[in-house]
Amino acid sequence: MNFENLIRDIYQKLKNIEDPGETASYIPELSKVDPTNFGIHISTINQSNFGIGNFDDKFSIQSIAKVLALILAYRIVGDEIWKRVGVEPSGTSFNSLVQLEADKGIPRNPFLNAGAIVVSDILISNLKNPKEEFIDFVRSISGNSGLEYSSKIAQSEKETGYRNVALCNFIKSFGEIENEPSDVLDFYFDLCSLEMSCKELSELFLFLANNGCQMKTNKEILNESQSKRINALMQTCGFYDESGEFAFKVGLPGKSGVGGGIIAIHPDQYAIAVWSPKLNIKGNSYKGMKFLEEFTTRSELSIF
Amino acid sequence: MNFENLIRDIYQKLKNIEDPGETASYIPELSKVDPTNFGIHISTINQSNFGIGNFDDKFSIQSIAKVLALILAYRIVGDEIWKRVGVEPSGTSFNSLVQLEADKGIPRNPFLNAGAIVVSDILISNLKNPKEEFIDFVRSISGNSGLEYSSKIAQSEKETGYRNVALCNFIKSFGEIENEPSDVLDFYFDLCSLEMSCKELSELFLFLANNGCQMKTNKEILNESQSKRINALMQTCGFYDESGEFAFKVGLPGKSGVGGGIIAIHPDQYAIAVWSPKLNIKGNSYKGMKFLEEFTTRSELSIF
Amino acid sequence: MNFENLIRDIYQKLKNIEDPGETASYIPELSKVDPTNFGIHISTINQSNFGIGNFDDKFSIQSIAKVLALILAYRIVGDEIWKRVGVEPSGTSFNSLVQLEADKGIPRNPFLNAGAIVVSDILISNLKNPKEEFIDFVRSISGNSGLEYSSKIAQSEKETGYRNVALCNFIKSFGEIENEPSDVLDFYFDLCSLEMSCKELSELFLFLANNGCQMKTNKEILNESQSKRINALMQTCGFYDESGEFAFKVGLPGKSGVGGGIIAIHPDQYAIAVWSPKLNIKGNSYKGMKFLEEFTTRSELSIF
Amino acid sequence: MNFENLIRDIYQKLKNIEDPGETASYIPELSKVDPTNFGIHISTINQSNFGIGNFDDKFSIQSIAKVLALILAYRIVGDEIWKRVGVEPSGTSFNSLVQLEADKGIPRNPFLNAGAIVVSDILISNLKNPKEEFIDFVRSISGNSGLEYSSKIAQSEKETGYRNVALCNFIKSFGEIENEPSDVLDFYFDLCSLEMSCKELSELFLFLANNGCQMKTNKEILNESQSKRINALMQTCGFYDESGEFAFKVGLPGKSGVGGGIIAIHPDQYAIAVWSPKLNIKGNSYKGMKFLEEFTTRSELSIF
Repeated sequence: MNFENLIRDIYQKLKNIEDPGETASYIPELSKVDPTNFGIHISTINQSNFGIGNFDDKFSIQSIAKVLALILAYRIVGDEIWKRVGVEPSGTSFNSLVQLEADKGIPRNPFLNAGAIVVSDILISNLKNPKEEFIDFVRSISGNSGLEYSSKIAQSEKETGYRNVALCNFIKSFGEIENEPSDVLDFYFDLCSLEMSCKELSELFLFLANNGCQMKTNKEILNESQSKRINALMQTCGFYDESGEFAFKVGLPGKSGVGGGIIAIHPDQYAIAVWSPKLNIKGNSYKGMKFLEEFTTRSELSIF
Repeated sequence: MNFENLIRDIYQKLKNIEDPGETASYIPELSKVDPTNFGIHISTINQSNFGIGNFDDKFSIQSIAKVLALILAYRIVGDEIWKRVGVEPSGTSFNSLVQLEADKGIPRNPFLNAGAIVVSDILISNLKNPKEEFIDFVRSISGNSGLEYSSKIAQSEKETGYRNVALCNFIKSFGEIENEPSDVLDFYFDLCSLEMSCKELSELFLFLANNGCQMKTNKEILNESQSKRINALMQTCGFYDESGEFAFKVGLPGKSGVGGGIIAIHPDQYAIAVWSPKLNIKGNSYKGMKFLEEFTTRSELSIF
Repeated sequence: MNFENLIRDIYQKLKNIEDPGETASYIPELSKVDPTNFGIHISTINQSNFGIGNFDDKFSIQSIAKVLALILAYRIVGDEIWKRVGVEPSGTSFNSLVQLEADKGIPRNPFLNAGAIVVSDILISNLKNPKEEFIDFVRSISGNSGLEYSSKIAQSEKETGYRNVALCNFIKSFGEIENEPSDVLDFYFDLCSLEMSCKELSELFLFLANNGCQMKTNKEILNESQSKRINALMQTCGFYDESGEFAFKVGLPGKSGVGGGIIAIHPDQYAIAVWSPKLNIKGNSYKGMKFLEEFTTRSELSIF
Repeated sequence: MNFENLIRDIYQKLKNIEDPGETASYIPELSKVDPTNFGIHISTINQSNFGIGNFDDKFSIQSIAKVLALILAYRIVGDEIWKRVGVEPSGTSFNSLVQLEADKGIPRNPFLNAGAIVVSDILISNLKNPKEEFIDFVRSISGNSGLEYSSKIAQSEKETGYRNVALCNFIKSFGEIENEPSDVLDFYFDLCSLEMSCKELSELFLFLANNGCQMKTNKEILNESQSKRINALMQTCGFYDESGEFAFKVGLPGKSGVGGGIIAIHPDQYAIAVWSPKLNIKGNSYKGMKFLEEFTTRSELSIF
């Protein structure tokens, strides 16, 4: 399939449609981004890569970083991680506290804020310099030493992220956070502030389409079983309470962030990243969802 | 891959393990089934079929029939169906009323009891003789004219299914059921009483591995997009609040029933049915889940 | 205190105010009542009784009858009743199913629909001719042989009361209803269809202001402790999720019905009944609440 | 009625019963208190006061202080306070977050932790030196200049009160806290650390039995209507999800604290304070509840 023409075609079609979405407003720094940005980049197993629009501009990847934190923690503690966080879709929005109360501080999955906070706690307990070692890990799997946190974004969240402070302290009250909440949150907000372009994202995540092995070096990031499980988790839990809709319409494992980015994986084929800052009511990029739906429909390639 | 040897091997290994599960007790008739039954049957795109154990014995397929009802309704009303029922995993058990209250009578997905009751309502509104036309449809896609409801099982449920009566009347109170609750429930209980063997199940469901087309006749049951969407729904919602776990460990779209049956689909490859009556705490066949986990792990074939 | 002048004064003031409420629409028969009806009647321990407006017109007392059912069941089974139904305010609306799920079929209190359905079940189990014996009991404590069910109202509810059918079957599914749901509901709908005037209501309920003894005959309906407990329950649970507001603003034990009636008790002083069919958003009579608030404020007589 | 003999009698009877309760363990400092302490003190309108047991020993009044904070805030902002906090019983435990999510940060009532945190926020916004001015207010209504915070208890809570940190930040995330959460919590934890004896408590709260006027000085702390409303709130919401039970069995407005203290008011008659540190499963003093139930039953004096 000639992905290039297809991507170009859908990009042109969607570029100027009216976008009813809104940029994330609860992180002040994010609301300053130009809402008309729109970029796509695909990286494939057979090395035919292609980008269009703002595919080379960096943006705040936000919750997409939760996948990276999970991968590092999975490498370090193995299946022990599933004692601290579940693998079930939650049926609720990304920052809900209700289920945490019923489940006594065990988040339903690692892609809810609560789950990523627990994963952050695990990383802090297991790393000497969590912030440095985490970004080193991300740089190593992407083969890109230029990746950075955004201190502006992190600071913006630290000043206004009351809901996340509530989540972390709530979990701590059940004894399910080992470190001081302020330390865990500090790491968590840094994590979410990572900045990448669509090109960098699709290159970085390509190993999940390659059974866990980095394409260029053939280095194993995760073993095959672990890699499939991360994909399964992205399939069932990657889009908050729109995960079913994404599986239904797009049919690929993926993860979105409130910065407007989405990464999606087609096992054995490709990783594709889309960015458009305006979000639909569920908190996922409006144009990004539209693009991927049309892309898998017209390419007739979904995992189903 | 030689599925035959692999299936035989796992079957032998699991046949005599201690099974901590329990047969469904809330439907009196179901609790009378011999709990040591264990059967498997695979039907593949390239015609290499194989069965072992009680693969040819009929059992009550229960909730697996919800997929068949959904398919018929999807054929009849098309995407209008999604106005009456959602496509999101629920995060709750199969017969919960809580979310219905929050969502004003719109079930989260068609595989919850509430969702299948709404699908039943749609069928009743659109068919002249719902009970007959439904089984005719099932017979036609399976190419098996011997399929039957079990009046014993249906009767057993009609006498004790208070929770389902509650669900149906609750949805009706929101105006989301068109027909009389007693008529809808009558059809629903018949639907769930369908009896099939593993062999019949895997043959029937093979069209979902074949982009919606019946293998033998090449007749289109669903178009390609619809077929993929049914698979996506089974992936995210097919196992109640263990759907994430199933995606995580097995990695295939599938659907279970409290009779102990499970059907799973590998798109473009096969449909596999497993039956063992004892259920784990989530209501899914204990041995069935174990078998499929080991089967996809050792065959290294999951959709992820 | 001269209640007569005070009541007359508040009645005149409220009679023609704009009433933003709505008559109950979910019971078709109730929505036909003239919404401008407004009546009040007080019966006091020292025999100075007074009525104004439509105080002598009968209306559907609806949920007020739950108090009468509770009293009869309390007489028959004593404190055993509290094993089947709680005494706590629910914090939710009158027909919610959510808490029932968490509490496994034990309603929070006897004035929720769920609670009154359980009380109905208890009465059916303990009476030979529940419908006849119940109305005989009500007639005997009121000293009024003319009290009747309204078959029109009962029929109207039986045809449309899907939510109550749901509640009853839901509780049955937890094993907390002994009889067939259809029998329990039949009795429950009759119960709620009782018709009385403000005069009849205040005369009937006066015994709760008299430590459980009928004024005229000195016959003990409930013992002193039981009588206080019924008052306490009306105080904390009598107005659905507006019970706190009623305690706060009116400061008397009481019970409302969706027919627009309210009965309130001042222990050792009086029973007062108000009727105005238009309901506020919580399902309690708009003018009735206003009247009682002003009445206890200006009479400076509340239990607090 | 001779309260003295009655109190002495019940005290003797309960003093040595087996107490199945547990001292509060989540505040480390509280768990160090001698669990056999048991004291009672009554202060009456007609000046016949009496104490027995450890009635003169100070203990941590904890949530009882929420009433005092509410009273001061009510004096300052009047009925505006009810825009920030409701007056309905919650049906949930004292530190639940579930309802806050549904109600968008408006606590159901001022006696839940969430509600008292909002009241604390109001006080901080309206007082120059909140900590000093609050204790001055408490001293002035008690006529007791010796009342103090316990810095040990406050410190103990500040180090472990993660649930309250979660609550405060959660409310802040809805925009319903004006000040910095850390400042609000600092004040809240000080507030709850107030120490008083049963004698001091019953003397302090006597004004609520006297229509809002201090007995000795005849000074108006609250006007009559406000005083009745505080009593009504204590009646419906004073004992977390055991408030209905307390109204039912004891029949007086009251408030408990996890330090094992309870204050109860009989309007126009008396204020009574009981202290016993072991708590029942709902978080209220086991012996305190028993004592008051027997006291109002045998004195035949409840508000109902």
